[in-house]
Amino acid sequence: MRAAVYRGREDVAVKEVPEPECPPGHVKIRVSHNGICGTDLHEYYAGPIFFPTEPHPLTGMSIPLVMGHEFCGVVVEVGDGVDGVAEGDRVAVEPIHRCGECPPCRAGRYNVCRRIGFHGLMADGGLAEYTVVPRHMLHTLPDTVSTELGAMVEPMAVAYHAARLGELTPGEHAVVFGAGPIGIGLWFALRGQGVEDITICEPSAERRQAISDLGARDVIDPTQIDPAHYVMSRTDGKGAAAAFDAAGVRASVESALDCLGARKPLVSVAIYERPLETTLLKLVLAETRIQGSLCYTSDDFAAVIDLMAHGHYRTDGWVTHIDLDDLHEEGFEALHAGRKMKVLVDL
Amino acid sequence: MRAAVYRGREDVAVKEVPEPECPPGHVKIRVSHNGICGTDLHEYYAGPIFFPTEPHPLTGMSIPLVMGHEFCGVVVEVGDGVDGVAEGDRVAVEPIHRCGECPPCRAGRYNVCRRIGFHGLMADGGLAEYTVVPRHMLHTLPDTVSTELGAMVEPMAVAYHAARLGELTPGEHAVVFGAGPIGIGLWFALRGQGVEDITICEPSAERRQAISDLGARDVIDPTQIDPAHYVMSRTDGKGAAAAFDAAGVRASVESALDCLGARKPLVSVAIYERPLETTLLKLVLAETRIQGSLCYTSDDFAAVIDLMAHGHYRTDGWVTHIDLDDLHEEGFEALHAGRKMKVLVDL
Repeated sequence: MRAAVYRGREDVAVKEVPEPECPPGHVKIRVSHNGICGTDLHEYYAGPIFFPTEPHPLTGMSIPLVMGHEFCGVVVEVGDGVDGVAEGDRVAVEPIHRCGECPPCRAGRYNVCRRIGFHGLMADGGLAEYTVVPRHMLHTLPDTVSTELGAMVEPMAVAYHAARLGELTPGEHAVVFGAGPIGIGLWFALRGQGVEDITICEPSAERRQAISDLGARDVIDPTQIDPAHYVMSRTDGKGAAAAFDAAGVRASVESALDCLGARKPLVSVAIYERPLETTLLKLVLAETRIQGSLCYTSDDFAAVIDLMAHGHYRTDGWVTHIDLDDLHEEGFEALHAGRKMKVLVDL
Repeated sequence: MRAAVYRGREDVAVKEVPEPECPPGHVKIRVSHNGICGTDLHEYYAGPIFFPTEPHPLTGMSIPLVMGHEFCGVVVEVGDGVDGVAEGDRVAVEPIHRCGECPPCRAGRYNVCRRIGFHGLMADGGLAEYTVVPRHMLHTLPDTVSTELGAMVEPMAVAYHAARLGELTPGEHAVVFGAGPIGIGLWFALRGQGVEDITICEPSAERRQAISDLGARDVIDPTQIDPAHYVMSRTDGKGAAAAFDAAGVRASVESALDCLGARKPLVSVAIYERPLETTLLKLVLAETRIQGSLCYTSDDFAAVIDLMAHGHYRTDGWVTHIDLDDLHEEGFEALHAGRKMKVLVDL
């Protein structure tokens, strides 16, 4: 079969590899689409970061490995001992290998498992015609959810999980920094949670246009309008009930803290490449907080799929499809240069 | 009467001033003791910071002003319209002037009032023989609480409030960075809230000795023992259920984040003089949070007084008394040089 194999920095080969076998407890999937994530770009241009160069403690695997952790497909083989799944089922995959034994796992928070492994980073992933996953990773897609949306469940679940940590109630005001795929996902997720009053802060004109075209009405350029002044004015001085950092730069963190009402959270769902100068005194003076958000658990996946089944998510204007053979030029390079926002590889 | 009057940086005069009048709604207090706070030191060596140079929006006052916001005393005059207070009552004073109108005030969080004013910073305070405060600032002291402890209610309430934001339950593990007056206050407060399992991290040998002498059994020098390694080992890898930063330096913030279990808070009760390099990625990877804590509300004052009435707080070994005439040498300079931990001025 054809697959994209990560071998090291700027070294991903699209080539023939053997089809994976389907051991007991697993299913084999014919992949429909696999999205390229920011993490994949980091691995391509600056990795290996998460790709293991020594056998991973949970999966036992190390590079070279097939990339891809945002995907959906059709079940083509069911391993021994697997119940409740049949050939032909359309499935999204929640790609977390967890140890099940560490304190977070025992508390049901396997998204922060101490030995977490991702299918497509610490094991062969979905940027291939076929992939094999353990049963627990499967989420069945309703007929009303397209395979295109199915491949978007994973990144949208990242955003949905972060949105929940904002602890908002309908009627409250949220502010989102960054209108890339996670920022857009936050906008969909917050509305799915009943929060309609959302200010989006995004310096890129293309990204402001894209989220506006999806229906966002309150989109500002933080290089032209001071977000804190704007949000305080919009909320009669009360401040936002939650802010979200999906940009990951100092300016977004500082601005977000200035937008918040007393005792409210800045939820961070960004990957900070290095330590940032942060004015922690702002947290003290308003009793606000910075709350980290990582990945998702199965309830986030289920909630996103349910919203998708009810027509809540749209991909027009920001999601692009490419062929596997165009992975480098139309995938990595186009995303890196900002020519595309979200790329799904058709397989 | 004699008073310590703040006129500007390194310019505090101990001198005769007129006794304050007692308008309706207020009471006049003969001050027993007034503590010197870290804020007072900042004002003396680097101010004016909070001392207003223009009339303050709530109090209408500006420097020169009588210092002092940590004090207790005896009521000597009761203004018109004041009920429930009598001459001779022993009282601690909760020194917050609040606007009552801003969103935090309306939510009962007047500790983060947008126009907050402190008695002793934005109005004439307690470093004087007499001071006059509005009725709402009074907390009556039970007979079992000494005037020495009465003057300590304010800083202990700062720590008690922060301890509550840790959201700990008895049996859980807490870690406190810094064993100055607020760190000691956190140790008392956490134990008052039923949390007995507390690691104290403090680089100063004198401060480690002082808190050990009060009964702390788990006190480490973070320059010799890595706090994260220590706390993870003490908690079987689970991590602390809350960490507290009462030190306010980069090393304490970074170490504290490394000590935390998944989804747990670092409560910050420090005054950060400048932005710090903070590894926000740590918050994301463990879904932890940094929660700011500022001052207190009346329930914190009441809780501390109740604990004091039950013999929970001790002042031996870390609280020193001085006369007003020794304010500069035995107060500001001794505290600034680290020769003393906490100073109460007897009035």
